[in-house]
Amino acid sequence: MNYKAILNILGTLLIIVAAAMILPVLVGLYYREKDIFAFIITSGITYLSGKLLKKCTYEGKGLQYKDGFVVVTLGWFLVSIYGALPFLISGVFKNPIDAFFESVSGFTTTGATVIMSLESVSKTVLFWRSLTHWLGGMGIIVMTMAILPELAGNMHLFKAEVPGPLHNRIQPRIQDTAKTLWLLYFFITICEIILLWISGVPFFESIIHSFGTVSTGGFSSRALSVKAYNSLLVDTIVTFFMFVAGTNFNLIYDLFRGKIRTFIKDEEFRFYIWILLIAIFLVSINLIFNVYDNPNDAIRYASFQVVSISSTTGYATVDYDTWPPFSRWILLILMFIGGSAGSTAGGIKVIRIKVLFKKGLQELYYLLHPRAIKKIKINKMVVSERVSTSILGFFFLYIMVFVMVTVVLTYFGIDLISAISAVAATLGNIGPGLELVGPLNSYLPFPDSAKLLLSFCMMLGRLEIYTILVFMFMDWR
Amino acid sequence: MNYKAILNILGTLLIIVAAAMILPVLVGLYYREKDIFAFIITSGITYLSGKLLKKCTYEGKGLQYKDGFVVVTLGWFLVSIYGALPFLISGVFKNPIDAFFESVSGFTTTGATVIMSLESVSKTVLFWRSLTHWLGGMGIIVMTMAILPELAGNMHLFKAEVPGPLHNRIQPRIQDTAKTLWLLYFFITICEIILLWISGVPFFESIIHSFGTVSTGGFSSRALSVKAYNSLLVDTIVTFFMFVAGTNFNLIYDLFRGKIRTFIKDEEFRFYIWILLIAIFLVSINLIFNVYDNPNDAIRYASFQVVSISSTTGYATVDYDTWPPFSRWILLILMFIGGSAGSTAGGIKVIRIKVLFKKGLQELYYLLHPRAIKKIKINKMVVSERVSTSILGFFFLYIMVFVMVTVVLTYFGIDLISAISAVAATLGNIGPGLELVGPLNSYLPFPDSAKLLLSFCMMLGRLEIYTILVFMFMDWR
Repeated sequence: MNYKAILNILGTLLIIVAAAMILPVLVGLYYREKDIFAFIITSGITYLSGKLLKKCTYEGKGLQYKDGFVVVTLGWFLVSIYGALPFLISGVFKNPIDAFFESVSGFTTTGATVIMSLESVSKTVLFWRSLTHWLGGMGIIVMTMAILPELAGNMHLFKAEVPGPLHNRIQPRIQDTAKTLWLLYFFITICEIILLWISGVPFFESIIHSFGTVSTGGFSSRALSVKAYNSLLVDTIVTFFMFVAGTNFNLIYDLFRGKIRTFIKDEEFRFYIWILLIAIFLVSINLIFNVYDNPNDAIRYASFQVVSISSTTGYATVDYDTWPPFSRWILLILMFIGGSAGSTAGGIKVIRIKVLFKKGLQELYYLLHPRAIKKIKINKMVVSERVSTSILGFFFLYIMVFVMVTVVLTYFGIDLISAISAVAATLGNIGPGLELVGPLNSYLPFPDSAKLLLSFCMMLGRLEIYTILVFMFMDWR
Repeated sequence: MNYKAILNILGTLLIIVAAAMILPVLVGLYYREKDIFAFIITSGITYLSGKLLKKCTYEGKGLQYKDGFVVVTLGWFLVSIYGALPFLISGVFKNPIDAFFESVSGFTTTGATVIMSLESVSKTVLFWRSLTHWLGGMGIIVMTMAILPELAGNMHLFKAEVPGPLHNRIQPRIQDTAKTLWLLYFFITICEIILLWISGVPFFESIIHSFGTVSTGGFSSRALSVKAYNSLLVDTIVTFFMFVAGTNFNLIYDLFRGKIRTFIKDEEFRFYIWILLIAIFLVSINLIFNVYDNPNDAIRYASFQVVSISSTTGYATVDYDTWPPFSRWILLILMFIGGSAGSTAGGIKVIRIKVLFKKGLQELYYLLHPRAIKKIKINKMVVSERVSTSILGFFFLYIMVFVMVTVVLTYFGIDLISAISAVAATLGNIGPGLELVGPLNSYLPFPDSAKLLLSFCMMLGRLEIYTILVFMFMDWR
C-alpha cells in the first residue's frame, strides 16, 4: 500500500473542493447573505487540510492497482465530511449527522434531503447544496484527473468512479477522456440553464435545477420541486435533460462527433428507451383508468415521473405516492434498474440488466443444448464469461445490500414500504421513495443511525458497491 | 421429440393418481360421507384417461434429453387438473379456477387455500387435499420411478423434479434412489402421525397435519391451523418435523446409515441451521421488546414461525402479520431462501444461497487479485464455473419472475405488501403471506386471472423455474 501517494492525492482533492467552495461565496456576495462566512471559513479549513496532507507526502505517481480502491473510497468520504461543514457552520443543521447526510446525498447525486423548509435556507447554502450534485455527478476524481496531469494513467481510479461494467470507449489517454467528459457535462448544463431561464424560471433557480438535472441529483430550491412552476414547457425541458443525463456520456460525445449510427445502434441506449417507453405506457394507462380524468395529465405526469425515477434524479411534479399500487411498483422497479452506464445516473444500470437477460437466455439455451456454446454479445462485441459472471455477482450483491439494510431500517420500527423504498432510493441514488420518504416528505424523522446507514448506502450505490466492499475486505499491507 | 413415449408416461402417471384417489374413498367409507362418490367418479375418469393414453402409445424407453422437460411439465399440469375434479364434483367449489388453484397448491406443497370455512368441508375432501401435498412433496414422477421400472435410467426426469442444483448423492441406479427416498419419506410421516396422536391430536387430524408437515405443504383441517391445539408439545413436534422436512432427504438417509460425520459436516445443513438460529434469535428479540411480555411466548412463537416459513410449510400458531415490520421482513426474506435442496421444501434453497455468497466473495477476491484463481467448494468438492454461474442465473430468473408477477398482481389494485408477499409465498411454495393473504386470510378474494397466475407461480417454484421455462422456449421438433 502506497500510503504517501494516496494521502497526496487526497490532499489535491481537498484543495479542489476548497476552490469549489469559493463559488457559493460569490453567490452570497451577490445576494448579500451572511452565510458567506461559513463558506470562507470552510474553504480555508479545507485548503489548509489539503496543503497539510500534500506537505507530509510526495506526488502520487507510483499508485498500485489496489490503491485505487482506497483513494476513491477515502476521497469520497473526506469530501463528504468537508462538504458538510458549511451546513453546520451556517446553522442550517444543529445535528452533524444531518449535515453529513445532506452532504453525502449531494455528492452522490441522490437528492434525499433532511431539510424540512427549503424556503428558509439562504441562496448561498442552496447553491452549495446543488453544487455538490454537480461536482459528484461526473465524479470529483475524474475532475481531478482532468485538471491535474499527476493522476493520468491511473485507469483503475477512473473505472472505480465512472459507473458501468464495460469501458470500451475510454480513449488511450485517460486525461483526455476525463476532460472530454467534463467539458460535455459543462456544456449540457449551460444549455439547460439557458433554456430554463428563457422559459421563465428565475436565473438562480435555473442554475439550481440544471445542476440537479444534469447530475441526476434532484435537489431543488423549492419545497414543491419542479411542480412549483406548473409549466408544461419547464416539465418538458427538465424531462429531456433528465433523459440525457441518464444516457452514456461517451455516447453523447459520439453524437457530437457525428457518429449518429453508433449512437442510434447502441444496445444499451435502445434498451433504455424501451424501458422508458414501456414504463410510461403502463403508468399512463394505470393513471387514466384510476386517477386523472384527462389523459393528457396522465401522460404528462407519467412521463416526467418515469424519466425522473429511471434516470435516478428524483424530481417530482406530483405526489406519485398517492398513485395506485401498480404505478408505485413500476417506479420501484425503475429505482433498481437506474440509468445507463457512463452516465451520472445510479441504480444497477440498464446495460447490466440487458446482460442479465441475455445471461438468463443463455442458461436456458445451455439446458436445451448442453454441449453447445453461445456467446453473449453487446453491440456485436463478445462479453467475456468473466465480465458477465461479475455482472451476475453484482446483481446478487446489490440485492443482498438492499435486503440487509432494509433489515436494519425495519428494526427501527419503520414500516415495510417506507423501509424498502428508502433503501432502494438511497442505494439507487434517486432520493425520494414511498410513504414516509415520499416526494413530499423528508428523511429528517429517521433515527441518526438510520441516517448514517443510508448515507453509507448512497456511497455504495454511487461507487457501485465493489469499490467500497473491496476497500473493506482488503488485506491492508 | 418422442411424443408417444411422453404420452405413455403421462398415462402411467394418471393411473397412479387414479389409484391414489381410492384412499379418500376408504376414508369416506369409514366416516360414512357421501363425498366418496366424487372420488369414485374421478378415479374412474382418471383411470380411463390413463388407460386410453397408454393404449394409443407404447412403452417409453426411448426418452430423449429434451423429453424430460415435457414429461415433467405436462405431468404436473395434468395431475393438477385431474386432482381438481373431486373438489368440483363434491361441490366444495363452484368455480373451476378455485378448484384448480387448490389442487395446484396441494401438489406443489404450497398450502395457499381458497377455502373460507374449513369446518364445513367433509373429511373425505380434507384427506384428499392433504394427500395431494404428500404425493407432491417427494414428487409424483419420482414415485412413478420408484414403482415402475420403465422409467429407470431417466436421470433428467429425476433431476427436473427433485429440487436443488447438485445431485452428488444419487445412487447409480435411479430407481433405487427413488425407492429409498419414498420409503424414508413414508417412515418419517408414520413417525409424526404416531407422535401427534400420542400427544392428544385426534388420529384423523394427526394424519392431515403429518402430510402437511412432512411435505412442507401447510394445509390444515382446522381454520386456526396448528394454533387450534394450543399445546406446546404439539408445537414442538410439528416444528421438529418441519425442520426435518426442510433438510436434504439424502442426508437424512446418510444419518440412518450411520454416516453421522457426513451428516454433521454437511455445509448446506450447517448453513440451514445457522439461518434458522439467527432468524429465531432476531425475531425473538424483536417480539420480546414489542409484542409479548413473556419471553417464553416470544421464543416459542418465533421458533415455530421461523421454521414453518423457512421450511416453506406455512403453518401458523399466531397471526404473525400483526408482528412489527422487522419480524415480518425477516419472514419475507426466509420465504425467498426456502429449505435445503433434495428436501420437500421450496424457495431458492439454502445451498444456492451459500454458493451465491461464495461467488460474491470470489468476485471481490478477483478484483483484488485479478490474475489469481479461486475455486468455489461445497463439502470440499469443487463447484464448477458452469454450475455456479447457472446458480447466479437462477437467482436472477427467480427475482425476475417475482418482480413481473407482482407487476400483474398490483395491476388488479392489490396493495404492494399483499402483492409482494402473495408472489413470494406462492413462488416459494409457502402458502400464506402478509396483509390480504396473511395467515388468517385466504386467496379467495383474488380475481380469477390472479389465481391462475399464482397457480403458475407455484408450479414454477416447485419445478424450479428452469424446467417450465425450457418447456416454454423449446423448439418443438
